[in-house]
Amino acid sequence: MRVSELAERAGVPLSAVKYYQREGLLPPGVRTAPNQVAYGDPHVRRVRLIRALLETGGLSVAATKEVVAALDADAAPLAEAFGVTQRAMSARRTQESTPSAAARARVEALAAARGWNVTAGNPGVDAAARALDGLRAIGFDAPDAYLEAYAAAAATAAAADLHALAGRGDRDAVAELMVVGTVLGDPLFAGLRRLAHEDATHALLPAPEQERAEP
Amino acid sequence: MRVSELAERAGVPLSAVKYYQREGLLPPGVRTAPNQVAYGDPHVRRVRLIRALLETGGLSVAATKEVVAALDADAAPLAEAFGVTQRAMSARRTQESTPSAAARARVEALAAARGWNVTAGNPGVDAAARALDGLRAIGFDAPDAYLEAYAAAAATAAAADLHALAGRGDRDAVAELMVVGTVLGDPLFAGLRRLAHEDATHALLPAPEQERAEP
Repeated sequence: MRVSELAERAGVPLSAVKYYQREGLLPPGVRTAPNQVAYGDPHVRRVRLIRALLETGGLSVAATKEVVAALDADAAPLAEAFGVTQRAMSARRTQESTPSAAARARVEALAAARGWNVTAGNPGVDAAARALDGLRAIGFDAPDAYLEAYAAAAATAAAADLHALAGRGDRDAVAELMVVGTVLGDPLFAGLRRLAHEDATHALLPAPEQERAEP
Repeated sequence: MRVSELAERAGVPLSAVKYYQREGLLPPGVRTAPNQVAYGDPHVRRVRLIRALLETGGLSVAATKEVVAALDADAAPLAEAFGVTQRAMSARRTQESTPSAAARARVEALAAARGWNVTAGNPGVDAAARALDGLRAIGFDAPDAYLEAYAAAAATAAAADLHALAGRGDRDAVAELMVVGTVLGDPLFAGLRRLAHEDATHALLPAPEQERAEP
């Protein structure tokens, strides 16, 4: 198919596909005539993947390029594509401070208490520790029960992610979902937590009189 | 106290405090002499709050200003500061696409099935729906069990958040935690999910031979 059909089938504007090409995110098509290049189904899949990472996931072009390269390294173990994605997501913010040693230690203790087998370089330790430092800054020294609830929530989501992976067919499909699920699981959870919050605050903070509907 | 002591007590560089002042994020101190301004404990608290929102939460200065203004509107109901925070966080990304009607409908059905009392304008609906659209783009049409697991995770975290609020003293402390917890709960969960993922992938994807330790 030609590039215009590729854009149409992927449901992405043609200008976006051309942008992905210029940025080297999309593998080249097959030249079928001096002025014609043909694209196939893998390109449609790749365009959709790139869009999900860039637009919904908020990854930079550089980070997306790394993730895509890891996916294409067929010989490399899948866990590597996964690790690259985790690091690419952590690089999203430009100027992140180093979390306190105390907060890191609490996160590591939490993981150990859950029996999680994790390496010291996992960027999740710093991400969670920074959040704890921020909460502490306003005088909220998160109690164990609070952290355990968040760890339980994370375990529930991760189990669903892994179960979804097990249902995919070939290596490419598994790798794609691993990468996109890592990136999009966060906004999915964040959106649902907003809804759960609103529900809970309706009970905790009843609307003032004037906002209630007239009987 | 003087501005240098304010910075020190808040654990923030002096240059950052001056930046917050220039941006109008910090209420003015009390002028005690023609060339001297005094700050109090509420300023220390506020500096820490601003830092958590800007740096760890990744909010823009404009969004932080809105959140801070909502916190300071003492007469307004607390739920309003909460709503402003939710909207400020959603404005973090610049060019977000409109999610599909089908994805929105699935999120709304999920909330309804959980008995969540939420308004149509809650930005969480769009955030979660966009994530579903992204997953669908790579051929993963999230099954009900997957969404229910994420909703259960969100409910677990939201319950912990609300429980923490109930343990705070005055209105200011509640409002601060509500705002900061809304912003920082996401990276806390995201970090812990990375750890849970790594643990799960160790089982699913054993390391290749050469990476194993020698016996």
